[in-house]
Amino acid sequence: MILQQKIDDVILLALKEDMNYGDITTDILITNEQISKAKLIAKEKGVIAGCEIFQRVFKLLNGTIEIIFYKNDGDYVQIGDVLGEISGQTKAILKAERTALNIIQRLSGIATMTNDLVRETEGIPVRIVDTRKTTPGLRDLEKYAVRVGGGYNHRFNLSDAVMIKDNHIHAVGSIKKAVEKAQANIPHTMKVEVEVENLDQLQEALEAKADIIMLDNMTTKQMKEAVSITDGQAILEASGNITDKTVKDIAHTGIQVISVGLITHSVKALDISLKFSK
Amino acid sequence: MILQQKIDDVILLALKEDMNYGDITTDILITNEQISKAKLIAKEKGVIAGCEIFQRVFKLLNGTIEIIFYKNDGDYVQIGDVLGEISGQTKAILKAERTALNIIQRLSGIATMTNDLVRETEGIPVRIVDTRKTTPGLRDLEKYAVRVGGGYNHRFNLSDAVMIKDNHIHAVGSIKKAVEKAQANIPHTMKVEVEVENLDQLQEALEAKADIIMLDNMTTKQMKEAVSITDGQAILEASGNITDKTVKDIAHTGIQVISVGLITHSVKALDISLKFSK
Amino acid sequence: MILQQKIDDVILLALKEDMNYGDITTDILITNEQISKAKLIAKEKGVIAGCEIFQRVFKLLNGTIEIIFYKNDGDYVQIGDVLGEISGQTKAILKAERTALNIIQRLSGIATMTNDLVRETEGIPVRIVDTRKTTPGLRDLEKYAVRVGGGYNHRFNLSDAVMIKDNHIHAVGSIKKAVEKAQANIPHTMKVEVEVENLDQLQEALEAKADIIMLDNMTTKQMKEAVSITDGQAILEASGNITDKTVKDIAHTGIQVISVGLITHSVKALDISLKFSK
Amino acid sequence: MILQQKIDDVILLALKEDMNYGDITTDILITNEQISKAKLIAKEKGVIAGCEIFQRVFKLLNGTIEIIFYKNDGDYVQIGDVLGEISGQTKAILKAERTALNIIQRLSGIATMTNDLVRETEGIPVRIVDTRKTTPGLRDLEKYAVRVGGGYNHRFNLSDAVMIKDNHIHAVGSIKKAVEKAQANIPHTMKVEVEVENLDQLQEALEAKADIIMLDNMTTKQMKEAVSITDGQAILEASGNITDKTVKDIAHTGIQVISVGLITHSVKALDISLKFSK
Amino acid sequence: MILQQKIDDVILLALKEDMNYGDITTDILITNEQISKAKLIAKEKGVIAGCEIFQRVFKLLNGTIEIIFYKNDGDYVQIGDVLGEISGQTKAILKAERTALNIIQRLSGIATMTNDLVRETEGIPVRIVDTRKTTPGLRDLEKYAVRVGGGYNHRFNLSDAVMIKDNHIHAVGSIKKAVEKAQANIPHTMKVEVEVENLDQLQEALEAKADIIMLDNMTTKQMKEAVSITDGQAILEASGNITDKTVKDIAHTGIQVISVGLITHSVKALDISLKFSK
Amino acid sequence: MILQQKIDDVILLALKEDMNYGDITTDILITNEQISKAKLIAKEKGVIAGCEIFQRVFKLLNGTIEIIFYKNDGDYVQIGDVLGEISGQTKAILKAERTALNIIQRLSGIATMTNDLVRETEGIPVRIVDTRKTTPGLRDLEKYAVRVGGGYNHRFNLSDAVMIKDNHIHAVGSIKKAVEKAQANIPHTMKVEVEVENLDQLQEALEAKADIIMLDNMTTKQMKEAVSITDGQAILEASGNITDKTVKDIAHTGIQVISVGLITHSVKALDISLKFSK
Repeated sequence: MILQQKIDDVILLALKEDMNYGDITTDILITNEQISKAKLIAKEKGVIAGCEIFQRVFKLLNGTIEIIFYKNDGDYVQIGDVLGEISGQTKAILKAERTALNIIQRLSGIATMTNDLVRETEGIPVRIVDTRKTTPGLRDLEKYAVRVGGGYNHRFNLSDAVMIKDNHIHAVGSIKKAVEKAQANIPHTMKVEVEVENLDQLQEALEAKADIIMLDNMTTKQMKEAVSITDGQAILEASGNITDKTVKDIAHTGIQVISVGLITHSVKALDISLKFSK
Repeated sequence: MILQQKIDDVILLALKEDMNYGDITTDILITNEQISKAKLIAKEKGVIAGCEIFQRVFKLLNGTIEIIFYKNDGDYVQIGDVLGEISGQTKAILKAERTALNIIQRLSGIATMTNDLVRETEGIPVRIVDTRKTTPGLRDLEKYAVRVGGGYNHRFNLSDAVMIKDNHIHAVGSIKKAVEKAQANIPHTMKVEVEVENLDQLQEALEAKADIIMLDNMTTKQMKEAVSITDGQAILEASGNITDKTVKDIAHTGIQVISVGLITHSVKALDISLKFSK
Repeated sequence: MILQQKIDDVILLALKEDMNYGDITTDILITNEQISKAKLIAKEKGVIAGCEIFQRVFKLLNGTIEIIFYKNDGDYVQIGDVLGEISGQTKAILKAERTALNIIQRLSGIATMTNDLVRETEGIPVRIVDTRKTTPGLRDLEKYAVRVGGGYNHRFNLSDAVMIKDNHIHAVGSIKKAVEKAQANIPHTMKVEVEVENLDQLQEALEAKADIIMLDNMTTKQMKEAVSITDGQAILEASGNITDKTVKDIAHTGIQVISVGLITHSVKALDISLKFSK
Repeated sequence: MILQQKIDDVILLALKEDMNYGDITTDILITNEQISKAKLIAKEKGVIAGCEIFQRVFKLLNGTIEIIFYKNDGDYVQIGDVLGEISGQTKAILKAERTALNIIQRLSGIATMTNDLVRETEGIPVRIVDTRKTTPGLRDLEKYAVRVGGGYNHRFNLSDAVMIKDNHIHAVGSIKKAVEKAQANIPHTMKVEVEVENLDQLQEALEAKADIIMLDNMTTKQMKEAVSITDGQAILEASGNITDKTVKDIAHTGIQVISVGLITHSVKALDISLKFSK
Repeated sequence: MILQQKIDDVILLALKEDMNYGDITTDILITNEQISKAKLIAKEKGVIAGCEIFQRVFKLLNGTIEIIFYKNDGDYVQIGDVLGEISGQTKAILKAERTALNIIQRLSGIATMTNDLVRETEGIPVRIVDTRKTTPGLRDLEKYAVRVGGGYNHRFNLSDAVMIKDNHIHAVGSIKKAVEKAQANIPHTMKVEVEVENLDQLQEALEAKADIIMLDNMTTKQMKEAVSITDGQAILEASGNITDKTVKDIAHTGIQVISVGLITHSVKALDISLKFSK
Repeated sequence: MILQQKIDDVILLALKEDMNYGDITTDILITNEQISKAKLIAKEKGVIAGCEIFQRVFKLLNGTIEIIFYKNDGDYVQIGDVLGEISGQTKAILKAERTALNIIQRLSGIATMTNDLVRETEGIPVRIVDTRKTTPGLRDLEKYAVRVGGGYNHRFNLSDAVMIKDNHIHAVGSIKKAVEKAQANIPHTMKVEVEVENLDQLQEALEAKADIIMLDNMTTKQMKEAVSITDGQAILEASGNITDKTVKDIAHTGIQVISVGLITHSVKALDISLKFSK
């Protein structure tokens, strides 16, 4: 769903970074004619994300390389599962290998960590959403991986939704004034979210008719009260160092959205490797 | 040590990604004249990396913003430590905040994870080195962070050293032939590394006069034998899913280099936050 | 409010397009030392937009050029008004002149055309908003000019709000299904707009709880009915070949938003010229 | 005739501007498999320009989309004329639609406005030419559209012909000195044009052997005298706020070239729309 | 006279090419505080070109580096002449050295080779001009160096003058038709050059009123006849493997322009070196 | 072996430089349908380099152009040899011609000059290597051409090997300290080269265990002594204004590597031309 040309920009950035003067080993030792087959294998269980991008890395080096996928983005794989098979020019496969793996391992890591939280809250009407704590240059890919893992996206960036924080409130004078000033100036297609630190501020935000209210680092007890006070007048979002240990309790408070930074800022790559057939 | 213009490329990529049409909230609610002060605070202990890049993000948005650092790259900080103070145009500080934090948190995470391994092996004559398992577009920054954490770099990319693997050996016929063919063609300024899976291959690689030999997924027992067989004729590098649990035992085998992927592919961001003064 | 570096990208694109091999006339006839003064004068009345960008063109060619503005973005100027005065290196002024004027004339044209519609609807609680019918590469500048003229922005692009049209409805089966499917998948920070062609579709869209409903090419009579039916449950937007002749009647129907393509796709540049002092 | 890669640069700039994070509506509601047909229809009469570029937008999103054109660049179309038919992946058609229309509408608007002036001067041996008052980043496309409309191009930019103005003359001392200095330094492949404000200056320019003389804001009476004085020794170009009202009288004065800014700086987009078949 | 930003693009391309991961030697061995002085010395005699660009390389790495030039572009220097002195941060000087020298040596080589031909033809009213046989990406710099050496530029590229060759004539049918078709379509600001291989073709080109006629690989005897036939009706340009051995005789034939490829395609770099003060 | 996308970047830079507004002559005189055949002919003897890149220039303008090569990179050709035949759209062939020739002539020039030195030293166990004295933006292509000519590459850039010079030694205090500090900090995959000016320094460098020692501007007598002193403990490289006159004597001294700047900084293009078939 991301523009192919934007994906290509990322891949080419990575390939140029890895081969500013070619792959000296492969260029010397492998002929242009040699062909290989290799299997893409999961060495860890988790959710796969990035198959098309993985494939694109090879295609950009050699359009004749073929990849058959046995697993697709969103599939939960087990250790030893063969995700797909690559065949074609050995030279190109060797040159693309690391870059392609770096991308699919990272995206699958994000999908897997997201999915862990999603499964933790299964059956509860709550969304796990991402944040803007993403890697420079990779935000669209990382937010895609969050969706693959069953999560949802928060705003993409500073341009597409209003998020009023402490500093903004101070500058304008009150939550009410800030929300009103925002509503008076933003596109009518846009929503306003306010970050609140306590229930008084929540009350103010509700009166100001904020569309979304972020409960910053509140206890689950406070969250429950917030849900009761809000009574459906705004979307409530929990935020602040949420982990797989705490997510379920938070989900049970009745808030609608839980935003989690670690699924993009502290990703554990999913171990996936390429095994050449003898 | 990285070209300023290359760092700027990364920062601008991130800023454009985050503000394709500006920061709608800040642009509406904050005036150009408003100024603020904010403290950069460690919420976790670890090694700081990326202070200059952090600062550059703000400078690129507004050249008059001032940052005083109390901690520098390489310092080990404690929870609550104030790393620095920022003062200047509120608008620019708010716009730069997330991008600047995303970068310093990631780099400090890498430095910290590297440093954990380095301290684990303190006193043992061994290097912790990185791999090519880095984030697309960020390799130079990430490799810098590894050095800040007390680690060393492996080759930067496929162009600057030879690494002969399984496939290369197969293509040419033997380790000996592969090493000789490489030596005959590469710049005289370059070294040749061979990846071996057992001690027979090690023997072959030694005979072929490889400069460096990577012991792939060997047991510590095998490594000790390898050290004994090698007897200083080549640099030995241990590789394969090395963690803080296993690194010390490996270090004690006598090999010279331990390469670790997780310090760049599975980074836990160091928690650092910006706190505005009231 | 737009990133300086994004503005610079546009200006440099224009300067390189105009001077791939320099300004042959000026390079030959004017010395580096010669300095000039010039006045920026309105040859037509209207709303000025783009002063900072105008200035930036000169600064990028020669940082020592000084510009004093007597009018600012948003000011309504009369024929003959002096907008500002430029002084500095003649060579740089001559080279920047055309590019700088091309930009300020276009942006001021947009602001003026927008402002004409805004003044036409003065006192009526309705917004004049833009569309995505902008010039390739200039969307952020053009949307800025709309705001300067007193208008508002619609969504910036296809990524930041949902707009369900005919084809989308067909694909999913009904307005209801389309809105529900969208709501279930988009970020919670995003709104859903539906384009309807008649009052039955309006009814459907309201039941589906669309946030915004676009009335496509309806008569003012239909619009009034739509307002009555909607009764505040959604934002109503009128759309379709709206001009300064028809905008007032439409505004009086009670809809909240009028989107107009011609303020960006058929801009009459505001006549502004640079007059060198003898 | 423009490099495909330069056209692609413009299109990709526009597509990335419109889809920094994809087309959220279409990505959610339309499947990859769905296909559509749509007709490109003229809603206004005029000259079509930009068919190939229009097509390229779709091709860049999906190479399998097919477009059959019934009208080509340069054709004068009537209201309701079907210009072409598009068939292929619905998703890609919807994503490309606005960008493709923005371009073809603008270029056709330029071709049409140019053609209006050309037809106004039919039978008179005079050229309608453009100026450098073009849109940043689109000059080559806009100058192409002028040619499609039956007009001619003036110099492309500041590098490819000399144009001596007031300031240049002042700097050097006289028209004679300026022309001579230019001729002595420019490539022998280049011409020299001088801008004159009265007939004395014209006389001077002729004596200096200028190749082209621009008559700046002269009356038709002055122009006739200029033609008589010049007597074929130089090309005469009329310039200064020329419109469809005044162009014919100017053409009849006997000058050879009329340069017109409004055909590129104040373009009325030609109304063209895409209608999907049910 | 070239846009600073275009020069910077070339320099940054070169610096990134030379330091994709920094200057490993200097980064390790030299501190940030160390400063140096170095002299720029001519090791060969010739014409200097590129002083400003040379300086810019250092400035881009460190804005505080100072360079004083004792010689400027266009000066003829002798072996041992000190061209300038550089002082500032040692680290930056060492990193910029090679890139800066590569540029100034090449440009000075071009200026010197051009100047040799210019001096060879001193006193004869003829121009030495360049061709399009330039280095990819460096055309504007190389054409600048030709001017510094006392030469003139031919057309900059395929867009700014017409050059009718064999193939074009074949396609249209005759020189007359080709020239007429060109004149009828090109901007009125542009000239038409025709390449002819014999005196019959010259006659045809003159009748077709070509502005410039290139005599391709003619003998000096033929050239003299050509001059006599042409009698000032067109500019005559000699072309074809011209060297310092043949240029004077050709100049004496009376043709006006001699175009020479080797001054840009076979440049002997001028030996210039940087000598650090102890 | 260079990334296709990096080659394309160079070619597109050149094509855009040569056709910012198209090829005015060809666009007017040649139809889209016209096709041609042309032969690529050597006008000088030498080693061909750049066939694939030559071909790519045409392909980028028109994918249907076909080229059959009769000679390949590395072949030594004679005057009059037909290197290949091109057939396809005349328009594209004419537009690509100059850019394609500029590249292949330069690369073949490098290969030929390199090969002259290689043949001069035939039978002697010595390498001819290049330097960093390459053209901005073309280093990878030029270093490729050196290899085609039978030469070898020195380090690619400042990032991939250590080269300790005078200034570095001064900064640290001694050759020994400099080498040790470098070894202690660089990747274990990297070598250390030291530049020495006399035999005392050579001795020091050997004691410091430098991997490579560059003998800067030594006499052949000194070189022979150096070889004897070194006795295989380091690779010896001769450097300093080496030409085809001096290379053989130097080769006979027993040093292993001779680095030569002129094969890239003072290239004589190999004369190759495109001849269209009638």
